Amino acid sequence: MPKRTSHEDASCTVARPLDAIGDGWSLLIIRDAFDGLRRFGEFQRNLGLAKNILSARLQNLVTHGILRTVPAGDGSPYQEYVLTEKGRGLFPVLVALRQWSEEHFFGPEESRTRLVDAQDGQPLPPLRILSHDGRELGPEDTTPITHNGDS
Amino acid sequence: MPKRTSHEDASCTVARPLDAIGDGWSLLIIRDAFDGLRRFGEFQRNLGLAKNILSARLQNLVTHGILRTVPAGDGSPYQEYVLTEKGRGLFPVLVALRQWSEEHFFGPEESRTRLVDAQDGQPLPPLRILSHDGRELGPEDTTPITHNGDS
Repeated sequence: MPKRTSHEDASCTVARPLDAIGDGWSLLIIRDAFDGLRRFGEFQRNLGLAKNILSARLQNLVTHGILRTVPAGDGSPYQEYVLTEKGRGLFPVLVALRQWSEEHFFGPEESRTRLVDAQDGQPLPPLRILSHDGRELGPEDTTPITHNGDS
Repeated sequence: MPKRTSHEDASCTVARPLDAIGDGWSLLIIRDAFDGLRRFGEFQRNLGLAKNILSARLQNLVTHGILRTVPAGDGSPYQEYVLTEKGRGLFPVLVALRQWSEEHFFGPEESRTRLVDAQDGQPLPPLRILSHDGRELGPEDTTPITHNGDS
């Protein structure tokens, strides 16, 4: 098994968060948390994941400030896991991933879960990457630079 | 080492692409491909990844239609890896991930790489999730449904 590399000191904005969310199970836990799941047993049943692995993934998400634990709302001794503001900030990442997936991994007749507007049930239009003055940008219209912070 | 679970039959749009891109190295290879890297040796030097692991990740991305191989442009015997249209479709996912990362994983004075508008060097404004009629949507304004395809 290859040594796990930490990306926490990376200056690249793609690399640094990978210790927190760079494995598939963590993304699925975050998806479930957005869908309203809160308890260990709920995640475990929905994901079919071994308890020790689920436990480690949940703890890692808490450590990275994406989930936090709260006492169960019904007064039972369980703790529940809820998204922090940082975790909720992943909403555009999940929407972008779902849209890409739906376009490229599903045939037109295949059943799939998708996010829709809760108000009118309409699908979300494709995300567009816009410049500050409203031009639509593709990959070739952007360039990576090193930003030295606001100091 | 836990048995690797395949998500390729999942009906969830978050889960199904995870066989293709659900590990950190694959995302970093895709990032490098967007930045213009094309050769095995270029990826290897930039990522510092063992050759056998890099080779397996590249092959997996080719298998899933995210990268394709082309003959080297300079007539040398090397092959090069370029993003397919499917791969280029990941641009909004990477932009969303970079924006979240920059907001939550970097202090204000830390140096970081960021994508800017190639035309004027301005940073990209935060992605907004909009409804078909232009309302801004947060997580609570959407709901997952099962869509049975267009059959």
